[in-house]
Amino acid sequence: MTVEFICVGTELLLGNIVNTNAAFLAEKCAELGLSCYYQTVVGDNRERLLATLKTALERSDIVLLSGGLGPTKDDLTKETVAEALGVPLVEDAASRRLIADFFTRRGMIPTENNWKQALIPQGARAIENKNGTAPGIAISHNGRYVFLMPGPPNELKPMFTHSIMPFLRTLEEDVISSVTVKIVGIGESQAETMVADLMDAQSNPTLAPYAKTGEVHFRITAKAESEEAAAALIAPIADELKARFGEHVYTTEAEVTLEQALTELLMRKKLTMTAAESCTGGMIAARMINVPGVSEVFKAGFVTYANEAKTKLVGVKDETLRAYGAVSSQTAEEMARGAAKAAEADVAVAVTGIAGPDGGTVEKPVGLVYIGCYVCGRVWVKEYHFGGNRMKIRESVTAAALVQLRKRILEYQAKEGEKKDGREQ
Amino acid sequence: MTVEFICVGTELLLGNIVNTNAAFLAEKCAELGLSCYYQTVVGDNRERLLATLKTALERSDIVLLSGGLGPTKDDLTKETVAEALGVPLVEDAASRRLIADFFTRRGMIPTENNWKQALIPQGARAIENKNGTAPGIAISHNGRYVFLMPGPPNELKPMFTHSIMPFLRTLEEDVISSVTVKIVGIGESQAETMVADLMDAQSNPTLAPYAKTGEVHFRITAKAESEEAAAALIAPIADELKARFGEHVYTTEAEVTLEQALTELLMRKKLTMTAAESCTGGMIAARMINVPGVSEVFKAGFVTYANEAKTKLVGVKDETLRAYGAVSSQTAEEMARGAAKAAEADVAVAVTGIAGPDGGTVEKPVGLVYIGCYVCGRVWVKEYHFGGNRMKIRESVTAAALVQLRKRILEYQAKEGEKKDGREQ
Repeated sequence: MTVEFICVGTELLLGNIVNTNAAFLAEKCAELGLSCYYQTVVGDNRERLLATLKTALERSDIVLLSGGLGPTKDDLTKETVAEALGVPLVEDAASRRLIADFFTRRGMIPTENNWKQALIPQGARAIENKNGTAPGIAISHNGRYVFLMPGPPNELKPMFTHSIMPFLRTLEEDVISSVTVKIVGIGESQAETMVADLMDAQSNPTLAPYAKTGEVHFRITAKAESEEAAAALIAPIADELKARFGEHVYTTEAEVTLEQALTELLMRKKLTMTAAESCTGGMIAARMINVPGVSEVFKAGFVTYANEAKTKLVGVKDETLRAYGAVSSQTAEEMARGAAKAAEADVAVAVTGIAGPDGGTVEKPVGLVYIGCYVCGRVWVKEYHFGGNRMKIRESVTAAALVQLRKRILEYQAKEGEKKDGREQ
Repeated sequence: MTVEFICVGTELLLGNIVNTNAAFLAEKCAELGLSCYYQTVVGDNRERLLATLKTALERSDIVLLSGGLGPTKDDLTKETVAEALGVPLVEDAASRRLIADFFTRRGMIPTENNWKQALIPQGARAIENKNGTAPGIAISHNGRYVFLMPGPPNELKPMFTHSIMPFLRTLEEDVISSVTVKIVGIGESQAETMVADLMDAQSNPTLAPYAKTGEVHFRITAKAESEEAAAALIAPIADELKARFGEHVYTTEAEVTLEQALTELLMRKKLTMTAAESCTGGMIAARMINVPGVSEVFKAGFVTYANEAKTKLVGVKDETLRAYGAVSSQTAEEMARGAAKAAEADVAVAVTGIAGPDGGTVEKPVGLVYIGCYVCGRVWVKEYHFGGNRMKIRESVTAAALVQLRKRILEYQAKEGEKKDGREQ
């Protein structure tokens, strides 16, 4: 079945707020296996809302509306929906009682326009709003389903989850399931080229790429009559992606981020980590510390933006800075070693570069970055050239640093494994 | 003139990402005095995009499209726009050269599908993308204007601001001008209540609030026949806001961020700054270091996530941690003092708190945060209670830390000034 959303609100059209309701509803509908092809934002305007509604009712099985259910005369979603369906508004006794209770509990007296919120289109059903005064409304009309929800996310989200989702679940026979294969260290177009044949062949399951900063995510989605059947359709494609991308795959779980995967790798290998950051200035540490429980492996980090901080906090030698400059392979190496020592950590990542917009030269242009990785005594430094504005460069460096450190830990551990096997001395 | 947006992307329809582009464009269009009546999200699907485009071209003067310009075969925005306008795609030589340069700089070789990004509809003009490989496209067609922009916000935002806005500004005869008064340290609803009379009385200029993390921005927008006339309409309202909000106003320049205002304050007062961060884990330093030239005032920072890091890097006493715990006013105070000492900085901000989702107790719940500010020998600590998920709490703490430090520097300097005047000993 198809679903579409109409989010009503002038504050969305003016950009006063971000439409988080649409993202929430979209994710939930995908989870329900409903196909969402359109989302529209329209203002509190009878004529334009009416036109939008009519189009939606022609092309979608389910229409979810949010906003415009408030008590003021600006709020006209309910009136317009009743008009589109050709039914009058009638008072819902239960809603009137709930509104009265809501005000009594708060020791407040409802104004005349609050009672407007007890009106619903004839033949519709009111949905209790546990977090506000505007009830939701459910309507079944000529084989279409229309749901009206209040605009505030803290009212809409629980109403949708607890009152509307259970009903929608009964409408779909098929189960939709998906797996996300997350890849680092390969660009979007190269990654896509590597699986072009799989994408061409797709119908069920489908394979779709999502580009993130420093990452590519492939989502495999299948429709089947049961969770098990959907999983069976997905598994061979997921295995094929893992085979083709090898250790570039850092997770196949939608919820797991790169920093989480790195944290898990560190925990598994019983390694602690630190970072010495110049141009990223704390972004690597900030990403790691977004992982709950990371304190087991990430205890301390250094923001060494100025030369004196590099010397003082992580022991970069004055002569290194003088001879090679702050943005150099040598400085990155000493930062990585020094950070590991100062934090008493097993692994360290260090970045030094020119994020711009000023400070670039012909020899050392904006975007030049050295990333040093220290793993249990050994250091690797890699030179990068990033493009974009200051923030974009810093985000790219942050992602590259996590990717590079993960790679070095995996390589190092692989070598250690080989040594133990006696294959390498 | 009217404008509408078509945001193309399956990831929006699936709720993988929140549509921040729409909010950004809406805010900018409001600033330009354009009337936005519709925003539509549609997938990477030729037929549905074509239908949406045709409707948009019938009812709006300007259509802004985002997304679907990537190198993959899923990306078909450009192809579909060309089809809707009845023109073929042709290669843009300048775009091809820019793509080649982009890859050369990175030492990478473009794949065949990268060149697809150099194609534009006949008669259109390519817009350089300084932050990615997909150029934007500008088309004038039968009195309508169509603009295509890449989907990633860090590419779309600078392209719109620097390449498209200046052109859109020329379309309106009247000059639209606006001033943004940025406020910190007062909640959104309180701030709105304080200027409700001004908002009610508005017609030209208009006054609109925008809530940001830890900040409220009021935009005053006027329409007039010249820049001077618009400025004259805006000035009295701006003055009134400054009078009502006092030092909560940190800037009246749209482009100036809180971290920039703080950097300028530090430079003006010739003070150096550092940070000791527990739950924010580098986010304060990362925000400061986003300001070009901040190295004059922000040289070093400490991520002291674990207790041992607090002790070792910024000298928090073991007995303080034992007696009061890591999340305490006492620890925040020692972190601030210790960070200033270790970095030899004049001012320091320190944060320690519980960002969740785990680690909360009845006495110290998730969201409890202490922010310590050290200014030239004196320390103030303030207790906060933030709501939301881990990331939201950490963002709120970061904003509050910058706000609090700014306030203490202003207060301290005011006192110093008074001392010099002999009014306080």
